Amino acid sequence: MRGNEPTLGQLGEFPMIDRLVAGRRQPNTTQLGPGDDAALVRCADGRAVVSVDMLVEGRHFRLDWSTPEQVGRKAIAQNAADIEAMGARPTAFVVGFGAPAHTSAADCTALADGMWAEAEQLGAGVVGGDLVQADRWVVSVTVLGDLAGRSPVLRSGARPGATLAVAGELGRSAAGLQLLRDGVGTGDFAELRRRHLVPQPPYGQGVVAADAGAQAMTDVSDGLIADLGHLAAASRVTCDVSRAALAPDYGALASAGAAVGADPWSWVLGGGEDHALVAAFPGAVPGGWRAIGHVVEGPAQVLVDGAVWDGLPGWQSFDSGAPLP
Amino acid sequence: MRGNEPTLGQLGEFPMIDRLVAGRRQPNTTQLGPGDDAALVRCADGRAVVSVDMLVEGRHFRLDWSTPEQVGRKAIAQNAADIEAMGARPTAFVVGFGAPAHTSAADCTALADGMWAEAEQLGAGVVGGDLVQADRWVVSVTVLGDLAGRSPVLRSGARPGATLAVAGELGRSAAGLQLLRDGVGTGDFAELRRRHLVPQPPYGQGVVAADAGAQAMTDVSDGLIADLGHLAAASRVTCDVSRAALAPDYGALASAGAAVGADPWSWVLGGGEDHALVAAFPGAVPGGWRAIGHVVEGPAQVLVDGAVWDGLPGWQSFDSGAPLP
Repeated sequence: MRGNEPTLGQLGEFPMIDRLVAGRRQPNTTQLGPGDDAALVRCADGRAVVSVDMLVEGRHFRLDWSTPEQVGRKAIAQNAADIEAMGARPTAFVVGFGAPAHTSAADCTALADGMWAEAEQLGAGVVGGDLVQADRWVVSVTVLGDLAGRSPVLRSGARPGATLAVAGELGRSAAGLQLLRDGVGTGDFAELRRRHLVPQPPYGQGVVAADAGAQAMTDVSDGLIADLGHLAAASRVTCDVSRAALAPDYGALASAGAAVGADPWSWVLGGGEDHALVAAFPGAVPGGWRAIGHVVEGPAQVLVDGAVWDGLPGWQSFDSGAPLP
Repeated sequence: MRGNEPTLGQLGEFPMIDRLVAGRRQPNTTQLGPGDDAALVRCADGRAVVSVDMLVEGRHFRLDWSTPEQVGRKAIAQNAADIEAMGARPTAFVVGFGAPAHTSAADCTALADGMWAEAEQLGAGVVGGDLVQADRWVVSVTVLGDLAGRSPVLRSGARPGATLAVAGELGRSAAGLQLLRDGVGTGDFAELRRRHLVPQPPYGQGVVAADAGAQAMTDVSDGLIADLGHLAAASRVTCDVSRAALAPDYGALASAGAAVGADPWSWVLGGGEDHALVAAFPGAVPGGWRAIGHVVEGPAQVLVDGAVWDGLPGWQSFDSGAPLP
């Protein structure tokens, strides 16, 4: 019990689900929401963009750092970013949630509240889910998106001569993680900590990029160098990034870097989870985007000011990378 | 290492994913498969049916009972059944997979092999996924389905006078689970054990039911009484099931019941995970289906031969129910 709230074990799966879905609003793309064997979502242009991300407690979030609502927001936001990175708009989310039987129903509701709030901000709906018992929290979110007739913007289309540009901010999430790990973060740094707990992808800019003729696009989930590396490999080009163009990100993190003794470049170039978008434009960079470098002929690699960067390679999913904390 | 196979931790996320997706075939509904930020799936009638199921090691499967390939098949099959239960056909699956860093790449590939094989049997594709580190295996599968212009068959449409009918078999999975728990199951019972490890939903019968005018339908994932209970509640009717009509299921399990000292009726009426389909038909029951009872006016409940059944209520997701031993 937490206060007068029952646990998941006391309440049981179906009464908990009834609580989770009661009174939620759905957008008009949701033709049938939670409550039957499956949901029904409108895919007006005859296609669905689809992606999945799984978040594991202790690996992708900590419940002593994040509120359940923040976990819910983060899970929705990072999935939405994958849809944005195709030049599409998220329309619907389905959620697999595993948690211990002793989890309070209030925490489960707060997780769902965060998901619904973030989805609503996107004009999308949480249309279905599954609730099961697990040793630790695990949140698996699948997102559907709508291209509205556009061609998807792949990672493989970047051509020499294109301008690389970013929508959204870089390095905030990694800085916030370091501040949380080091127990630093009152006052000025509270916002950076929040950025780690709930990323703020540049919603809507994926469609802007597609409409502006972006040749290739991806979201920065593992780190700018790492994710541009995927784009460079898929496009068989070299991506050359300019540190001068990233100076605003560096500057925003300089005092946090000094506070924890870290090099802000490692956050800007190597830090993931901000879910900024990076794209290659053959012509002018649209509003909301800022140029950060160029696509050039050469082997599939990422250069910083023309040289190989020797910093951190970005997030790794298995233990060669660093788990929390 | 397992033989010469590296572990997930040694190989890393992206090289493992490259192995998992190399050489896989995709149906023509898959416009873009794994490898970018998201996949692209054709939804020809402008809608997508969507559902998710999460399977947790130790709770929904045991790796000393199931091969990784069987876990993969089961995860796909039970999701496919949710789509069938709407009167639709599965077209695409996306998979979130969490596993320890010491998991062998061979086991991970075998899981994917099982998923691809089961999906191929359905004419569907595994179009994307996420691979993360977790303490135990957790498999979250989301399925998309195609109604091909049909109206979805909901749980809420059953009307008094309709005939209840089943496609597929009942009680096999529960019997197999008991045989596995008790260590009984060589010879004659091997098939029942396999049915627990890999269910065999009656693929295609959901569409048959929809085309035959089914008023309401669901799949038997928690147990016939439990799942008919959801249908009865949604439709605000009483479902009356005849034991005589279920005699073939009982008969098929009689010797297994004797071997472990269990009442086969508890398996037939209370056992889930066979993913049979149960539906209410206003007229004749189509081929592939067998009548098992009737919809009558009355409170939302399920009766067996006109009386409340006092057996097990079916699978529960939290610890009030029985986890795997």
